[in-house]
Amino acid sequence: MRAYKHVVERVEEQILAGTLKVGDRLPPERDLAAQLQVSRAAVREAMRTLEAQGVVRSGVGSGPDAGTVVSALPSEALTRLLRLHVALANFAMDDVVAARVMLERSSAALAAAHASPAALAAVAEPLQAMAAEPDRHEFNDLDTAFHIAVAEAGGNRLVADMTIAIREAMRLPILRELEQLGDRWPAVRSRLYAEHRAIHDAIAAGDETRAGDLMAEHIHSSRRLLAP
Amino acid sequence: MRAYKHVVERVEEQILAGTLKVGDRLPPERDLAAQLQVSRAAVREAMRTLEAQGVVRSGVGSGPDAGTVVSALPSEALTRLLRLHVALANFAMDDVVAARVMLERSSAALAAAHASPAALAAVAEPLQAMAAEPDRHEFNDLDTAFHIAVAEAGGNRLVADMTIAIREAMRLPILRELEQLGDRWPAVRSRLYAEHRAIHDAIAAGDETRAGDLMAEHIHSSRRLLAP
Repeated sequence: MRAYKHVVERVEEQILAGTLKVGDRLPPERDLAAQLQVSRAAVREAMRTLEAQGVVRSGVGSGPDAGTVVSALPSEALTRLLRLHVALANFAMDDVVAARVMLERSSAALAAAHASPAALAAVAEPLQAMAAEPDRHEFNDLDTAFHIAVAEAGGNRLVADMTIAIREAMRLPILRELEQLGDRWPAVRSRLYAEHRAIHDAIAAGDETRAGDLMAEHIHSSRRLLAP
Repeated sequence: MRAYKHVVERVEEQILAGTLKVGDRLPPERDLAAQLQVSRAAVREAMRTLEAQGVVRSGVGSGPDAGTVVSALPSEALTRLLRLHVALANFAMDDVVAARVMLERSSAALAAAHASPAALAAVAEPLQAMAAEPDRHEFNDLDTAFHIAVAEAGGNRLVADMTIAIREAMRLPILRELEQLGDRWPAVRSRLYAEHRAIHDAIAAGDETRAGDLMAEHIHSSRRLLAP
């Protein structure tokens, strides 16, 4: 194994073991190199890798206090990797649809139970623009925004992060499918708009079961509508 | 933004847009530096970052064909980041439990519908050792192995990857809780063993609803049993 990977793994082990927590400062480069018996260049490379992943921030503080600290991974770091994973891993489309149904049924039900007025307004907002007969590209962005708003409204951060990552990974494949609809596009757009509207209404009414069921039906029916 | 991040983002955009696919070769360092108007050092640093994340492999081929190719992200890359994310992001424990219930109810039902004889044997295997009164550390490893085997038996790779990552992130917090049980440990161990056994039996019987319900109850009841 290359030396920098060894350093990355030791840092990760300590995070998983709870001995390194958010805000903790890593030992200086020189000490870490001595502890792990690697070169200082390997430690520097490991720190750059961890920084690129959002696990640490370097150059925090100044003078003798300057150093590298463990940072809370931003949700963006996770959704970014999950998006790449979905794009590269070539998951069976049926598996992705099943995963979306499971996550988003749950998000929609949670949203019906918990959505704040502000979160509900964020769910409603893309619908206004969807009703104005947007083009396929705009529609796809509004559609993505709707599903993300529902996930956020559910209030479970971990479920929302997973939902958002998968929906964003689908943005491009869905756009491609919309582009291949030809003359069917206006009819499909009306149908998809109506389904989104019904989901919103069930969430607004606080009807958990109906919101979850409508979301699950919508994901399945979009798949059938859009499949080539 | 630092130059290497610019390079990383351009490569990721092309992957998400589908213009770079698994097995595609990236342009040589010199050309990429010229295209993106950054230094060759920045391109090298970006490649190291992408390689550390499993997005590309370098040094593929030899002579004039040597280069960096886009690789299928291994599941391990995703589960690793999700594990770190759960460890660092400090999700509310109720949110993690709700996410587990959702994912694992679905995995258990899928396993009841689809498990091959080999996958079912992998679910049964940790139970044998659990019955032999293992210590807390061994028990926790067997418990993790059981939940991973159920996720794998469900046959949905994306759902399994998410399930495994979250369960592995829980390995250490759960061990800590087991260690704090004091005299209650033998009783808790018997109870948890019986719950795992019942889930296995429902999966083996092909009863999707019962397998899903028992898994959901088990995750909730473990939480109550182990909570300090």
